[in-house]
Amino acid sequence: MTEEFILNLIHQGRLVEARTWISQMNAVDVASWLEELDRNNILVIFRLLPKDMAAEVFSYLPNEDQEFIIESIADREIKSIIEELFLDDTVDLIEEMPANIVKKVLKNTSEERRKLINQFLKYPEDSAGSLMTIEFVDLKKEMRVDEALAYIRKNGIDKETVDICYVIDKNRKLEGIIPIRKLILNDTSQIIKNIMITNIISVHTLDDQEDVAAIFKRYDLLAVPVVDKENRLVGIITIDDIVDIIEQENTEDFHKMAAMQPTDEEYLKTNVFTLARHRLPWLLVLMISATFTGAIMQRFEDALAAMAVLYAFIPMLMDTGGNAGSQSATLIIRGLALDEISLGDTIKVVWKELGVSILVGIALAVVNFIRILITRQASPVVALTVSLSLIITLILSKVIGGALPILAKRMRMDPAIMAGPLITTIVDALALFSYFSLASWLLGL
Amino acid sequence: MTEEFILNLIHQGRLVEARTWISQMNAVDVASWLEELDRNNILVIFRLLPKDMAAEVFSYLPNEDQEFIIESIADREIKSIIEELFLDDTVDLIEEMPANIVKKVLKNTSEERRKLINQFLKYPEDSAGSLMTIEFVDLKKEMRVDEALAYIRKNGIDKETVDICYVIDKNRKLEGIIPIRKLILNDTSQIIKNIMITNIISVHTLDDQEDVAAIFKRYDLLAVPVVDKENRLVGIITIDDIVDIIEQENTEDFHKMAAMQPTDEEYLKTNVFTLARHRLPWLLVLMISATFTGAIMQRFEDALAAMAVLYAFIPMLMDTGGNAGSQSATLIIRGLALDEISLGDTIKVVWKELGVSILVGIALAVVNFIRILITRQASPVVALTVSLSLIITLILSKVIGGALPILAKRMRMDPAIMAGPLITTIVDALALFSYFSLASWLLGL
Repeated sequence: MTEEFILNLIHQGRLVEARTWISQMNAVDVASWLEELDRNNILVIFRLLPKDMAAEVFSYLPNEDQEFIIESIADREIKSIIEELFLDDTVDLIEEMPANIVKKVLKNTSEERRKLINQFLKYPEDSAGSLMTIEFVDLKKEMRVDEALAYIRKNGIDKETVDICYVIDKNRKLEGIIPIRKLILNDTSQIIKNIMITNIISVHTLDDQEDVAAIFKRYDLLAVPVVDKENRLVGIITIDDIVDIIEQENTEDFHKMAAMQPTDEEYLKTNVFTLARHRLPWLLVLMISATFTGAIMQRFEDALAAMAVLYAFIPMLMDTGGNAGSQSATLIIRGLALDEISLGDTIKVVWKELGVSILVGIALAVVNFIRILITRQASPVVALTVSLSLIITLILSKVIGGALPILAKRMRMDPAIMAGPLITTIVDALALFSYFSLASWLLGL
Repeated sequence: MTEEFILNLIHQGRLVEARTWISQMNAVDVASWLEELDRNNILVIFRLLPKDMAAEVFSYLPNEDQEFIIESIADREIKSIIEELFLDDTVDLIEEMPANIVKKVLKNTSEERRKLINQFLKYPEDSAGSLMTIEFVDLKKEMRVDEALAYIRKNGIDKETVDICYVIDKNRKLEGIIPIRKLILNDTSQIIKNIMITNIISVHTLDDQEDVAAIFKRYDLLAVPVVDKENRLVGIITIDDIVDIIEQENTEDFHKMAAMQPTDEEYLKTNVFTLARHRLPWLLVLMISATFTGAIMQRFEDALAAMAVLYAFIPMLMDTGGNAGSQSATLIIRGLALDEISLGDTIKVVWKELGVSILVGIALAVVNFIRILITRQASPVVALTVSLSLIITLILSKVIGGALPILAKRMRMDPAIMAGPLITTIVDALALFSYFSLASWLLGL
């Protein structure tokens, strides 16, 4: 492989050759290669990187490697990396490094940039402001296309998304946007004002990142301008960051739906105590809640003692109810997250779940009834009791599983917590209560 | 609102004014407005749309509205829409419409385009080939920058992603890529060959869409070239389609993890029978499996009859085991999906889950022990039995929940099926077996 070959060149001291090879690699691949190397090699290779590539590779490295590099290299080298780094990456870096590293970084940052960083650090976490970058091209609407192109040629080299330019007035208010391809496709004497798009989709600095992602998805955007309260352009957000946000929001939902506190941290990099801390609270709450179900069993203890065979169907009823409820809750939570289901749809959802649960309930009950008779596990009356309980359990679990996520959203809670685990706990208690009541009545216990 | 205002204009017969207003709206917003209107108004407004906007709005409409429009409008109008539609949208349309509509569409498609469509229809579903579009700009490496710009000006108007140009040789083999901004930033007399990027990331027509999405995420791409076996450029895939794929793959995982057959269809648009059909199979399998747990209870029936209070802790043990197992399984499934965990990490995962389960298990067991004593629900010996069983259940559920998804992936199955519902069924049987065994031993039943 190229990587081994380059390492060999380095160990033979053929650094110029190694540098040529490395500079032809993709920065992402260089970063994941460095991740696997020991610290000595990391430093050697990092120092071989061309200046602009060094900053890009650096931005893709995990925090611990970034920390190590900043600790190890000279101030002059830090300065050159920070200069090349996009502002949003610099802010991320400062947010995640320990104090001594932050100090070393800020010492090597220009006054002007330090001010910007401070301003960015004030935006709340998960807000559009904390996601945006300031590397964009701004034009004036009076410019001609050739003037605009000349301006871009002069200023555009470092801009993250020069593919779209933003037209602002003298107060920095956003007046229009113009994709760079439109500049090329139009006559050079054309005035920007006449060809810019004025029907602009923009977001506010304080908008939540989830809402920003929804706008990207809805309008198939590549970048969105971020404005402040006075509609002044303060930054842009690009699609590559949004893709990360989408995955992050999905991960959060997966975690919440499995009754855990959500986290960004990678599993293998999280220590056992942190993992335990994220899982314990909900397990505790649900464990305590499950004792209600136990209390129901105790209440019917005497009746059940007369017909101990009834106990044997408890796991089947509990599991099936939990699974059926999880199915419904998952569909609704996902539908809400993708904006396919809205708060006004509660009745529709309940109605639909009722229909589905009756169909599925009857099918399962029939199979269950036949199974019990064939295996001679119990008498026909008991089989009937169990099967009817199964239908009731299905209806309860699907209607509750469908309704609770929407109700949660109505009460401005995250629907994702109304998922499998919580639904299961609620449904179990109701399922067993119905089962025992039905048994007492049908079997005359 | 603008929409109401425009509808009023239309009802007053002021169509030219209405058209002006509509043409200033975003095509996505027009499409979602049309979705809410009755069919009469849909047609009136659709016919008012400027030609290029009509195609864009059309591509955002749900299938039933697309079908209705094609059924209702004249061949000439269809022709103009199909001409404006991007090829990938046309192919999607043909794949999803009933035969009579497809016939009407193909009748109004040029011979050349029909051939292309047929070729596209041959790519397997979920392959890169089925995702790509052919609207891109191709350049030759011998061109000068000004020649390239002139060529783009002449040919580029309709191209979906003119932001990146692709350099091909006379056999259409891909030789390089060049972002349009690089053309602008370079001297007009520069030769493409000298400024193009040759370190190209491309995908193959038969690559799976999930792998394509992973490449976009890894390299922060906006578009990727698609090549055939001979490395000839046949199309490009753009990030907007990838965002949809990412959400689609996440939805699939959510569905599978809740023991359902995954589907793309929106919940509210799916009928009750289809919903039931997607949910029944797994519920049935899990219901039958849960009878094993019941069999275990029957086996211990005599022992348990001597101490009926033991029954009351069954729901708590089952639920807690299920929840704990779901937590682990979810973390691992998600980690595998995001490539944060690899097949080689089995030992690490099992080890970590063992640690977490001991910590969490002890914490829960202590709380549980104290609760039983305080509420005087049972004797200290019983409380001890239940609490020890809880620790064993936690260890079993977390280790199994952590290991099964990785094992599934090793066996080339989808890890997402090894989620909550299946883990719960397995863990329940083991948990109750441990509980009863422990009780028989400690309590001498």
